[in-house]
Amino acid sequence: MQAESFFSDHVKKALTNDPPGEWMPDVPKACIPLHSGYPNPALVPDKELKEAASRLLDEERDLPLHYMGSPRPAVLKKQIQKRLAVRGIHCRDDELIVTSGACQAIDLAARVFLDEQTAAAVEAPAYMEALEIFKNYTPHMMSVPADQEGLQTETLALMLEERKRKGLVLPRLLYTIPAFQNPAGTVMSAKRRTRLLQLAETYDFLILEDDAYGELGFTDIPPPLKAMDQNGRVLYAGSLSKVIAPGMRIGWIAGNASFIKALSWFKKDLDHPFSQAVTAVYLEQTNVEERLAALREAYRSKRDVLLAALEQYLPESASWNVPDGGYFVWVRVPGADTSALLARALSSGVSYVPGKYFFLNQKDGAEYLRLSFSYAGKAAIKEGVQKLGRLLENEV
Amino acid sequence: MQAESFFSDHVKKALTNDPPGEWMPDVPKACIPLHSGYPNPALVPDKELKEAASRLLDEERDLPLHYMGSPRPAVLKKQIQKRLAVRGIHCRDDELIVTSGACQAIDLAARVFLDEQTAAAVEAPAYMEALEIFKNYTPHMMSVPADQEGLQTETLALMLEERKRKGLVLPRLLYTIPAFQNPAGTVMSAKRRTRLLQLAETYDFLILEDDAYGELGFTDIPPPLKAMDQNGRVLYAGSLSKVIAPGMRIGWIAGNASFIKALSWFKKDLDHPFSQAVTAVYLEQTNVEERLAALREAYRSKRDVLLAALEQYLPESASWNVPDGGYFVWVRVPGADTSALLARALSSGVSYVPGKYFFLNQKDGAEYLRLSFSYAGKAAIKEGVQKLGRLLENEV
Repeated sequence: MQAESFFSDHVKKALTNDPPGEWMPDVPKACIPLHSGYPNPALVPDKELKEAASRLLDEERDLPLHYMGSPRPAVLKKQIQKRLAVRGIHCRDDELIVTSGACQAIDLAARVFLDEQTAAAVEAPAYMEALEIFKNYTPHMMSVPADQEGLQTETLALMLEERKRKGLVLPRLLYTIPAFQNPAGTVMSAKRRTRLLQLAETYDFLILEDDAYGELGFTDIPPPLKAMDQNGRVLYAGSLSKVIAPGMRIGWIAGNASFIKALSWFKKDLDHPFSQAVTAVYLEQTNVEERLAALREAYRSKRDVLLAALEQYLPESASWNVPDGGYFVWVRVPGADTSALLARALSSGVSYVPGKYFFLNQKDGAEYLRLSFSYAGKAAIKEGVQKLGRLLENEV
Repeated sequence: MQAESFFSDHVKKALTNDPPGEWMPDVPKACIPLHSGYPNPALVPDKELKEAASRLLDEERDLPLHYMGSPRPAVLKKQIQKRLAVRGIHCRDDELIVTSGACQAIDLAARVFLDEQTAAAVEAPAYMEALEIFKNYTPHMMSVPADQEGLQTETLALMLEERKRKGLVLPRLLYTIPAFQNPAGTVMSAKRRTRLLQLAETYDFLILEDDAYGELGFTDIPPPLKAMDQNGRVLYAGSLSKVIAPGMRIGWIAGNASFIKALSWFKKDLDHPFSQAVTAVYLEQTNVEERLAALREAYRSKRDVLLAALEQYLPESASWNVPDGGYFVWVRVPGADTSALLARALSSGVSYVPGKYFFLNQKDGAEYLRLSFSYAGKAAIKEGVQKLGRLLENEV
């Protein structure tokens, strides 16, 4: 029996034409985890979630442990709608579904909108998990360069026009993280946001906006694309992973009711009443604005430690952005091969994510690396960058 | 903007060729819930799960609240492997993935193995959620009659031979619940199990075995298909929903490592560390054999109440199976239209699931209804059947 012969056509194509990219090696526990996009352990509300779970089960007994029956998943949906309203996004119940994190939201959108006759457009660099998801559904991927102001909309316009002229497949979905992008930490400018929405209208594509970091800004930034969307072209994905805890697996996708209906129909893992209800009780007991203010302050201060250490320890030739929110600093070291260097970094006790993982073509990004200021403590951040600086001095 | 024009080819086809079937109307809260496939509230371990959540977060703090880091999801996997070994199924780590319930396992298998050039075979009657899942991936469905000994393998052999002769698409995947089937409550006989495995070999298809009720037998039954599988043709799905609590969303799929690798690649909701870790702690603290023995005793006794009430209150012409495990009794009332009758049943305070929902063609099954002895209490079961009996007396 040849196992592969049983795979469906699209799985065969996904696995042969576009095999899974190479992934980060395991990071030894002793390493200073500058690779990690996890929230800071001290900022994860484990005690409060413990109390929420206890209170929930005391109050509701078996209700949140069935498929349905607890009122709390509906409460969570209202709480999410309330958060979205603060971001300028107003959605009805049939315009929102709760998902298992933003990743499931991206996967559902890929499944519902992409096929081999369509293309997906992504930023370069892009969130690596999203790249892998889209490659499961279409071999046609457009990688659109981004800079300090985010996705380069004029370059996108030229690329679209060229594809149209050549009769190539046009994108049906463009995926972007306009606020504190992963990995680049950048924010898309207001002008480019307006232009991107125009291009979506002109070239008839949908925008999948991932706003996982949107509430973690240290300064004011333009409103989400979804808040500016007049034509229902934006699907808005979000998550509580970066502001509460990723292990609860709470995300969502908001959009046009017809889209949400189709996404729901293909979401076959059913609801997750226990984790949703625990999260709802936690949110009932929490002043979210105060929590967000504390998170912003804590992460801003950790960012400053990382930036100061980069200034102090990195070679003269290295450069980086100054992110105004989120978790990440994107560093360029001209002449370096950050992928080749990783093994030595890990053995000297510091980790990072090599740039290549964030590009469709893993030959790109060799001079880049992603550092995170979210997970490690301040002293560890400083020590980690010092180790990294020593390695890079020998490299360039 | 025409929302539907953005759907991928296979979504368009799924929604137009095979639109979602009709579903159960909402059941008023006051109804005696004989429709419900939920576990009995008194048998859901809410106190123990509360203690498990507290102990987990006391011991591990933020670890189970990140994407990864808690040792408990790996512990859960070992606990599942131990349970499977009791059922005669021995699988390595790379032959098993934990899913969000058996439903996600079925959906992943459908996604990885089915396309429009393949067929899916199901039992008649079949678990309704599985029907909807398969219809999302292929328009070619084979509905194989089942009786008291489960799926009729000789009829299947004739159907396969006929399809082959006619040049019709043959099934790539056959879905079955051989132990205490939903809805029929039946067990596939040992002889038919052997025959089904032979047919899979002859006609080169895979078997997706759903064993959600396998540990809830009141008598000994033949081993699972997977335990008899010499050729790696069986994918074995299971769940803790029926023996612990569905709200935790813990299921799995075991099979050939190449299959498991592909299924994992298309599982993009990431792991669910919190619910998995809570469940692992609960299982560490629980004597599972004792718990299962207590569940079997409790459900056997509730089954007896349901059967006695059917004997007492249902019209002479009605007939039903005597299930030796699981949650369900499948009742036939010659001449009845159980779908048309439902509204009156609900307004007289009792619910059931009309037979039609369990058939590919919803024109079938009009004389059947599914009753559950799992959720309602004993007095309610008796009262519910009395109400149902009164309605049916007027009907037939």
